[in-house]
Parts: sequence; C-alpha cells; structure tokens
Amino acid sequence: MAPEQRREHLIATALQLYSARAPEDVSIDDIVGAADVSRALFYRYFGNIREVHEAALGTVVDELIGRLGGPAPGDVREQLRAALTEFIGFVQTYSDSYTALLRSGSTVATTATEGLVERVREHVVDLVCLRCEVEGPTPALLLTLRGWVAVVETTLLRWLQDPSIPRQDLEPWFADQLLSMIATTARHDADTAAQTAHLRLG
Amino acid sequence: MAPEQRREHLIATALQLYSARAPEDVSIDDIVGAADVSRALFYRYFGNIREVHEAALGTVVDELIGRLGGPAPGDVREQLRAALTEFIGFVQTYSDSYTALLRSGSTVATTATEGLVERVREHVVDLVCLRCEVEGPTPALLLTLRGWVAVVETTLLRWLQDPSIPRQDLEPWFADQLLSMIATTARHDADTAAQTAHLRLG
Repeated sequence: MAPEQRREHLIATALQLYSARAPEDVSIDDIVGAADVSRALFYRYFGNIREVHEAALGTVVDELIGRLGGPAPGDVREQLRAALTEFIGFVQTYSDSYTALLRSGSTVATTATEGLVERVREHVVDLVCLRCEVEGPTPALLLTLRGWVAVVETTLLRWLQDPSIPRQDLEPWFADQLLSMIATTARHDADTAAQTAHLRLG
Repeated sequence: MAPEQRREHLIATALQLYSARAPEDVSIDDIVGAADVSRALFYRYFGNIREVHEAALGTVVDELIGRLGGPAPGDVREQLRAALTEFIGFVQTYSDSYTALLRSGSTVATTATEGLVERVREHVVDLVCLRCEVEGPTPALLLTLRGWVAVVETTLLRWLQDPSIPRQDLEPWFADQLLSMIATTARHDADTAAQTAHLRLG
C-alpha cells in the first residue's frame, strides 16, 4: 500500500471500531490488531491515539456534511425530513461515538473534536437558511436555528439510550419543531417575521 | 472560625472568584490568597482544587434550585417567565463558570459537575411539569421538555458572548418557545395531546 492508502486504512479501521464502541475505548493495540499492522507502522502515521480519533472524526464529519447537502426534491418540510433521515442514520451508525463526542467530561471531547462538532452545527444552520431561502439570518433567527440543532442533538442522545419513540416519527416531529420555533421567533421579532414571511409558517 | 464555617468561607471565596473568571482559571493559591488563609489550612478541608470546584458548584446548584422553586403567582406563562428571570440572573452572575461548565472539553466539566448540571435540568423539567399540572409526562413530552432546556442553555451560552437580543426579550421568548414546542409535540402524539389538553395551547 502507498503511504496515503495506509493512513486511510488505519482511519477506516478506527472508524469500524468506533461503530461498535466509543472512541475512548479504542486503543492503539485495537487498531493495529484489527488492521493487522505493527505498532511501528502506526507511529509512522500518527503520534498518539488522539490524532487517530481526530483524523477519523474529521473524515466522518466530511462524509456527513457531504450527505446532508445532497439534492433534495420537494418543499422545505420534505427537504428537512430528507436531511434529518441522513443525520439520524449517521447517528445510529456511530451511536457510541456520537454519545462520547457530545458527553461533557468525555475524554474524547477535545478542543479539536469540539471544533468538528461545531462545524456540523454551523453547516446545518447554513443548510436550513439555504433551503428556507433566508440570506443573512437575523440574530434571533440564528439563535433559534442553533437552539433547534440543540433540540435534535439532545433528543437523539436520549433516544439512543431509550428509543421509546419510533424512528420514523422523529423526522416529521423535528421538522415541525423547527418550523414552529421559527414561527414563534417571528411573533417576537419583526425583523425575523419579515425575513421568514415567504415561508408562510401560519 | 469553626471548621464548618472555615469550609464555607473557602467555598464562598471560590464562588466570588468564579463570578469574575472560569473555575479552571482559579487556583488554590488564588483561593487561599483571597480568603487570607494558609495552604495548609486549605488542605485540611479539600484534597485538591477539583474538590473545591465541585463543592462550590454544588452550593450554587442548591441555591439555584431553591430560587427556581419559589412561589410564583399568575398563569403558567407568568410562572415560567418568573423562573426564567431567576435562571437568567443566575447565569449572568456566574457567566464564566456557566460557560466553562457547559463547554465540551472544558477541564471543569467532570463526571461530578456533569451530574450537577443534570440535576438542574431534571429539576427544571420537574418544575415545568408541576406548574403545567402534568403528572408522569409521556416519553415525547419528556423529550420535548429536555429539548427546550437545551434551547435555553444553548441560547444563553451564545447570548452571553453576544447579547444582541435585549435581556428583557429573552423570558417571554423562551416561555413561548416552550409552549409552542409542547403544542407541536401534541400534534404528533395523541397521548401528549391528551395530557396537555388543559393547557389550551391552541
């Protein structure tokens, strides 16, 4: 394998392990064992386990952002539901990693991984603005969109532990929560009302 | 001073320092300096700086929970606004500590402090249920209330950095977001609709 391929292979191996358990429970030995390479080879590409975590999580975030931005037919609500389906599928695939990343006090939550999580949040907010045809959202609308991202994150974290709500009910529920949160903010803030008038939120 | 008073005095000193900067930037030297005691005396009460952080944050959480549960006249919306006024005042007083506690990857966010933050969240959810006269909330309603707590936390964290929304606009906005989030969930879940019918959410 070429050096770049070897590095990718180690990252892919780490990701495979992350889908079964949290990154903090994956060691260098686990990765070199599963990839069938020597520790010496590992250290040619990474200085320590944290570097693999960050590289692997960066790969996943790139993939997620690519999938969220895919073409989506239909109206805003349908587009939202399609993006939510991608997001929830992703969270289910990496449930332990997702939980570890967002859990406060987790050893995996470093400044670098926090930056990755922030990148996803910002991307989601930009995407919602794009799909809702809102340019330069008002401060109140921006806070509302960030608040909604927090609702989705918090709900999914708890839902992963206790999936008492059927999976297929989540997307339409989240989509409606977003639209009603925007409508509420529009009732409180004239600038947001003007900016979102074309959405006819009721 | 009696031993218990001395301990309280050290905690009060730590809290005073936290209102000016984040706990992670407060050292044992800072505390003994401000309290005008020796390091030896400090170590009679606490094993390390983390123990003071946790004791001090526990004191603050007890105080906050006491204040949130105070008597509140008026209807649900007015009661909510009164509790939110207490909460926002608290967050403003301890803005650096609040930010440090909730920032992922923060050295202050330990399993113990995460437990304290969780206690506040659970208390808020219980309080909302009590004020809304909801007993044994449905899974969907519980997720909605936890989601709303996340909205308030996320919004306040960003608002502390950039207070572009006037303080007095926050309480009615948060209160309306909660009621409209509950209304949205009620539209998606018949059990929640039955449970919250008396709230006449529209």
